[in-house]
Amino acid sequence: MSTPLESYVEGRWVAGAEGVPVADAVTGEEIVRVSSAGIDMAGVVEHARTVGGPALRASTFRERAATLKALATHLREHRPEFYALSYRTGATLFDSRFDVDGGIAVLSAYAGIGARDLPDDTVLVVDQPQTLSRGGGFVGQHLATSRLGAAVQINAYNFPVWGMLEKLAPALLAGVPSIVKPATPTAYLTELVVREIVASDLLPEGALQLVCGSAGELLDHLGPQDSIAFTGSAGTAERLRGTSTVLREAVRFTAEADSLNCSILGEDVTADSPEFGLYVDQLVTEMTVKAGQKCTAIRRALVPDGLVGALADAVSARLTEVVVGNPATEGVTMGALAGLAQREDVWSAVDGLMRSTRIVSGDPRKVDPVDADAERGAFMTPVLLHAPDPDAAEGHTIEAFGPVSTVIGYRDTGHAVELAARGHGSLAASVVTGDGGLASRIVRGLAPWHGRVLVLDTDSGPESTGHGSPLPGLLHGGPGRAGGGAELGGLESVHHHLQRVAVQGSPLALAAVRGGTA
Amino acid sequence: MSTPLESYVEGRWVAGAEGVPVADAVTGEEIVRVSSAGIDMAGVVEHARTVGGPALRASTFRERAATLKALATHLREHRPEFYALSYRTGATLFDSRFDVDGGIAVLSAYAGIGARDLPDDTVLVVDQPQTLSRGGGFVGQHLATSRLGAAVQINAYNFPVWGMLEKLAPALLAGVPSIVKPATPTAYLTELVVREIVASDLLPEGALQLVCGSAGELLDHLGPQDSIAFTGSAGTAERLRGTSTVLREAVRFTAEADSLNCSILGEDVTADSPEFGLYVDQLVTEMTVKAGQKCTAIRRALVPDGLVGALADAVSARLTEVVVGNPATEGVTMGALAGLAQREDVWSAVDGLMRSTRIVSGDPRKVDPVDADAERGAFMTPVLLHAPDPDAAEGHTIEAFGPVSTVIGYRDTGHAVELAARGHGSLAASVVTGDGGLASRIVRGLAPWHGRVLVLDTDSGPESTGHGSPLPGLLHGGPGRAGGGAELGGLESVHHHLQRVAVQGSPLALAAVRGGTA
Repeated sequence: MSTPLESYVEGRWVAGAEGVPVADAVTGEEIVRVSSAGIDMAGVVEHARTVGGPALRASTFRERAATLKALATHLREHRPEFYALSYRTGATLFDSRFDVDGGIAVLSAYAGIGARDLPDDTVLVVDQPQTLSRGGGFVGQHLATSRLGAAVQINAYNFPVWGMLEKLAPALLAGVPSIVKPATPTAYLTELVVREIVASDLLPEGALQLVCGSAGELLDHLGPQDSIAFTGSAGTAERLRGTSTVLREAVRFTAEADSLNCSILGEDVTADSPEFGLYVDQLVTEMTVKAGQKCTAIRRALVPDGLVGALADAVSARLTEVVVGNPATEGVTMGALAGLAQREDVWSAVDGLMRSTRIVSGDPRKVDPVDADAERGAFMTPVLLHAPDPDAAEGHTIEAFGPVSTVIGYRDTGHAVELAARGHGSLAASVVTGDGGLASRIVRGLAPWHGRVLVLDTDSGPESTGHGSPLPGLLHGGPGRAGGGAELGGLESVHHHLQRVAVQGSPLALAAVRGGTA
Repeated sequence: MSTPLESYVEGRWVAGAEGVPVADAVTGEEIVRVSSAGIDMAGVVEHARTVGGPALRASTFRERAATLKALATHLREHRPEFYALSYRTGATLFDSRFDVDGGIAVLSAYAGIGARDLPDDTVLVVDQPQTLSRGGGFVGQHLATSRLGAAVQINAYNFPVWGMLEKLAPALLAGVPSIVKPATPTAYLTELVVREIVASDLLPEGALQLVCGSAGELLDHLGPQDSIAFTGSAGTAERLRGTSTVLREAVRFTAEADSLNCSILGEDVTADSPEFGLYVDQLVTEMTVKAGQKCTAIRRALVPDGLVGALADAVSARLTEVVVGNPATEGVTMGALAGLAQREDVWSAVDGLMRSTRIVSGDPRKVDPVDADAERGAFMTPVLLHAPDPDAAEGHTIEAFGPVSTVIGYRDTGHAVELAARGHGSLAASVVTGDGGLASRIVRGLAPWHGRVLVLDTDSGPESTGHGSPLPGLLHGGPGRAGGGAELGGLESVHHHLQRVAVQGSPLALAAVRGGTA
């Protein structure tokens, strides 16, 4: 039996009893057992509130920004260890750079935001004073101050490093302690990073706790100063949002759920246009990076009816060049899914999709991985589907969380915008067109249903960070099925951990409040 | 039997079958019967989405601002009719000015915000472009666009006019249609105002619907583009937040619940200081305006231990001068509660409070109203209580939603801040002190638990709008027991009805998107 994975709670590393076995995604070998049994969840919350919170709030925004910067530097030095372990999650080195380097980049970005846009104080002045009386002797303005609770962060299995750091960075900068609950299948990589953070001694004790395994009754101990940020499925988001403590205590709850993101090829594009190539490149990238296990990946390729055939051919040709196999092996371009259970889920979703789609490329249940066993490792051939009826429900509602996309033809731009909205709210969309007016029309049509929209053309193509990449300075989240939440977006996600308060009084009194306690 | 109160849905006035009788708060005479039975709630939501929404979104922010301005002007002319009916809710003319003029002032304020801070476009550019690549060919920025659903507004009985208009104004400005559900006891006054709005013909059809009576299955028809803004008790907020549609569809939900707001008299103040007088004046005002039926009213008077006696004496003396009676009668300074049921609730809360407090002034069940009947009208004498044990739970948890406050002595400033937090989250607090450093210390201590904090001193005293007055430009809402929501606060509450979207692309593509469709 493998060793139990440890949690870091109340200032010490503890192992859970028994536990769920977690296997190497590539070899199927058991790596660790994961359990939170025996952890005193009330104690964890109390430790965050009474030890971590006061320690963080004793420093100013600027000081916390400096801590983030130091933490980024420290973790950057340890990337080789993270990459090495990351292979076992099925990730290639390219994938790991998204996860590890991407996560560290979020720390650096928030360090920059703190240094540039936040004060050397524990209270943030939000706006200019407003005059509230004719005589001018009565004014008001908004301040923001750290909330006094814990930030509970429940992460998904696909980005064990980035997923933690993108939630941790704004909370730390805001002066709020975090309780990180990684997803079990890849918790061992999160644990390694937390171990390095703890070893760095850069954070005050209590600022970061790690609970591996089930959240148990953790949420039952939360109150009005606490928050929950969840990433995962829409179904789990619904259940957590309905927790009695969340409802009763008005706990701040935000969800980021994977969604039926679409990429629209503009009506102006022909099979010979350079935009056609950009579209194909991006679609193949989104299908294969992290083996398609990205909340933001393109699930629906919306293309003009007349280009469906050409696109299917071009993408199929590119997909046959994808080398699936052991991610540590030279020449492999796509690794494994996070585990066999995840592969079962994808297969089942593809079965559902096939009620109204047909396979253009790839056999979901047939794979011949390089330097690995097809049965023991969670490998899968990329699958491109086509939906002959663009309005059929399956393509707009069933998400296969793996290397799977569906090509859907549209009649005209209005139809494309309508189809995009059929996703019922998505994290990200992209529009590939060389026509600015068309881009504007589509973006404005997509806007109410999306958190982020990328316009790709020959100008931006060479420098684009891509459809699927959330960036620290831009909103990450979307309405409806995407969870209705908002993460990143620069200062916005710091405010999520602050309480805004309107202060009224004489100009002198407000100056005294802004000035702090003597 | 009185006439049924009508609702305005799907472009016509309809009467509900049967209905709950609503009585005049002053005479007990039945005024109307209120019921939403027979209203097709799915049709109401659909009408908002398909008729009201598109019509509103066809105009720009600036055009909608102009509509708000015209609406304010129109309603201002009809104030005499509103005042006349408002007496029947138990409100004095002074109270009605808070409700009616205050509500119209919110319309005007949002008209100003729209004209000054919003574009003559349907899409709002939120920030400056960020450079996302070394070459500068790839940038990103945030836009905000009207959400495509309905804004369901469930209001409390205490401010039938302001309560509606403060929620309606930001929604209209944002281009989102409203479905207003007034509280039954005073719905007839809301209805009169809506009748004037409809008659004015200033709003496009579908922009405003009114559902009098129970919300029935209204919430079951909501989706990810819809929102609910609720004002009322914490218990109802909890229930609505847990509605299955809200959980499943990530419907935006915000609550503003009445809370145990406190007013702190600074340790620097003596019984001879002018601040002592300011404190007493404000407390008496908050206890008696709207007969104390304000979500923001002072429920807890936190004063230095040594001043408890002097304060109790001074407030008692002032309360004996209050003239309770028919609000339409000359010389009356405090009217009735909204109804006999509401008075029963207040009595019951006072009974609860008396487990650990004693009465300083007033007998809750004894009243001698001027020009009215003490049994038929919902009158009540203002009641001041004192909690000998400052830490006893009742004073910090039981809210008597009427002319009732509890004096609680504190040992030192740290203790006062601790006691304030015992309210578990409040809408508003005030601090009366002549010492800027002390003000700063207290405000910073109160900040995480409050939506608004007023500092009162001799400079601001003469011009202060008072502890209990939410203002359009300042946040209205508070954490925890206060509901965790945020209303007003200028542009913030317009954003509540918009979807923020990050747009990425070449500088030219973004310029095209900002420029709109040609």
